[in-house]
Amino acid sequence: MPRPDMISVDEARDRILAGLHPMPAEVVALANAWNRVTAEPVVARLTQPPSDVSAMDGYALRAADGGLRASLRVIGAAPAGHPFEGSVGPGQTVRLFTGSVVPAGADAILLQEDTERDGDTVVVTEAVVAGRHIRRAGQDFTNGDVVIPAGRRLTARDVGLAAAANHPWLNVHRKPRVAILATGDEIALPGEPIPPGGIVSSNSHALAALVRAMGGEPAVLPVAKDTTEAVAAAADQVAGFDLLVTTGGASVGDHDLVISGLQTRGLVVDFWQIAMRPGKPLLFGNMGAVPVLGLPGNPVSALVCSALFLLPALALMQGLPAAPPPTVSALLGTALQQNDHRADHLRATVATDEQGRLVVTPFPVQDSAMLRRLALADALVLRVPHAPALPAGAEVTVIRLDTLGV
Amino acid sequence: MPRPDMISVDEARDRILAGLHPMPAEVVALANAWNRVTAEPVVARLTQPPSDVSAMDGYALRAADGGLRASLRVIGAAPAGHPFEGSVGPGQTVRLFTGSVVPAGADAILLQEDTERDGDTVVVTEAVVAGRHIRRAGQDFTNGDVVIPAGRRLTARDVGLAAAANHPWLNVHRKPRVAILATGDEIALPGEPIPPGGIVSSNSHALAALVRAMGGEPAVLPVAKDTTEAVAAAADQVAGFDLLVTTGGASVGDHDLVISGLQTRGLVVDFWQIAMRPGKPLLFGNMGAVPVLGLPGNPVSALVCSALFLLPALALMQGLPAAPPPTVSALLGTALQQNDHRADHLRATVATDEQGRLVVTPFPVQDSAMLRRLALADALVLRVPHAPALPAGAEVTVIRLDTLGV
Repeated sequence: MPRPDMISVDEARDRILAGLHPMPAEVVALANAWNRVTAEPVVARLTQPPSDVSAMDGYALRAADGGLRASLRVIGAAPAGHPFEGSVGPGQTVRLFTGSVVPAGADAILLQEDTERDGDTVVVTEAVVAGRHIRRAGQDFTNGDVVIPAGRRLTARDVGLAAAANHPWLNVHRKPRVAILATGDEIALPGEPIPPGGIVSSNSHALAALVRAMGGEPAVLPVAKDTTEAVAAAADQVAGFDLLVTTGGASVGDHDLVISGLQTRGLVVDFWQIAMRPGKPLLFGNMGAVPVLGLPGNPVSALVCSALFLLPALALMQGLPAAPPPTVSALLGTALQQNDHRADHLRATVATDEQGRLVVTPFPVQDSAMLRRLALADALVLRVPHAPALPAGAEVTVIRLDTLGV
Repeated sequence: MPRPDMISVDEARDRILAGLHPMPAEVVALANAWNRVTAEPVVARLTQPPSDVSAMDGYALRAADGGLRASLRVIGAAPAGHPFEGSVGPGQTVRLFTGSVVPAGADAILLQEDTERDGDTVVVTEAVVAGRHIRRAGQDFTNGDVVIPAGRRLTARDVGLAAAANHPWLNVHRKPRVAILATGDEIALPGEPIPPGGIVSSNSHALAALVRAMGGEPAVLPVAKDTTEAVAAAADQVAGFDLLVTTGGASVGDHDLVISGLQTRGLVVDFWQIAMRPGKPLLFGNMGAVPVLGLPGNPVSALVCSALFLLPALALMQGLPAAPPPTVSALLGTALQQNDHRADHLRATVATDEQGRLVVTPFPVQDSAMLRRLALADALVLRVPHAPALPAGAEVTVIRLDTLGV
């Protein structure tokens, strides 16, 4: 059980997702639709194949004419895109290619390699079977079929399918526009002069990359100094964004400026202690029409919290189901001690054993200041509060960072 | 064994990869570096943390002064970004926050929650341990460390790490520019008038999406009609591209126009029958300085061949290791018959069983004309030539399409 003043990871995520909604639709050209999420079902505008077509190179004929050593007269050819206009009568045949429309009268395909041809005459060297090697009209889909449901992130294959279904445009959910605000007197952007005791800001651009990886559109705001006025001035820039993500300045220390700064601009906020590590303080609320997610300033905590809370938020805002980040099962490469009252998210490498099973090995030191180690991690091993000690080889649940692109 | 006139999938891939090389480097802003591949190691330009810093909110003091109920005088505070300039003497302490520089003279941290404070006086309620809660200078990385190797596709975490290492710019491999040429009199683009017996072209935009998904930059050329002259005219447009991908027109039929058209512009070509299904005919060669990969016209074959040949090609061109597409192990959801002499790539759905193991279930019908089914597939089950029959539950090797984004 978390302490009474703390909430669980799942409860925090549920509360965040309950406060968000999918973006409305926009029209995009098919060429720009990859990785976007459909806002409505994609309905086939034609039947595919449109007619019965040949699945092979060969000849169209009547099955009754296709016995071994039968001889047929070639009365035409039908390359793909040039259907044969006439009808195939007894003793006649038409040269076809893969994808050619099967001409009227024909009900069988004689394969190219099962023939001997001499001028306009073709001799059958392997008897035909009626219907074989014919792809029936509508085998792939029929006019009016839903070929892609609403709420699907479009793969390259889906783009091909939408094209085949004759869609030059698609209705997809708008990309959520996410403003990213880092705060702190000690923060410098890369390449800028670093103040005494200061550090280079890694959160803003890491979060921007994460937003982009998840299909959103990030905007990095200038770093706000540690004053209420500076944070309030930054808040004035976020009208029209779909989400504001802040990092830092929201601890329980003496320098709680994000909340006070945003409150001058109407922030109504829940501030939570979450029973998790790394992480713990998190804020979520609304500033006018703009939802606000406040992440810890520590870069490792910020990125782990992003995987747990921002990813599902961005998914929901793009029209995907409200859900935790996807997990897989893996075997532990090393023993783990019992966990305490905070859910833990152990940075780990992933390998494959001789049987092809996933093996995750948490780093021995899990200090949340070690960004380099986080970058080397392929996965987060999820440890629920008070999870028991586990031997090497035990099964655990992990979030794979490597396949998420984050 | 493949037939003597056929080559294996692995041999074809090896030959293609041997004919390609990584793109040269370009400089991109850190903000645009996500998903790009580093062309050189990223070397830390500073030490992180730059000095010993506090891992917690609390007070800096001499460990000798931190016994239970000891009383200390607060001589200053050091918020992050505002280091304390003086030195901590006996009986003295300085207020610190997470990330604050530990001042000279101090060697221990007293946690905020382990104190009673009254004005300028702090009383210890839990004895300190020397060095505890101090993050040492360089714990994350040291000036001159390689924090990201060359040849790595940058994640959001890597972008954060490069920022922390003080890099506003990164040298990455150029995106390969890929021209995509579909051929065929029967082909119409979505929304355009469809000729009699024609179909809507799905290959061009599916391949463009795939190229984009894999980090390349696609250009879809206008569809070329089925004449040598039309293909030759298209070939004149591809100088300066890093790769030309064609679809269709390269079968053994009477309509072999891609090769003859490109040969008028200098194509030197290998034309292969590959012992695989779906697929089989594939061409690879060079037209002047431009490598040419000719895929089958059938959309399912084109996309499966892309996963097997184009993905590794694009990876190599971006500076990643030459390798087959990534595979994982999974359990069969259904029995499989013995395979024939052609390597098969069964379209399959992926699920997770109660033990969290991957289960792949091939579709019962594997017709290569069924694009809708390909779009629904999460994986390709790899079947080598003459692979034995397998019962449900047997282990197989699969390429996951769902996590590749293709």
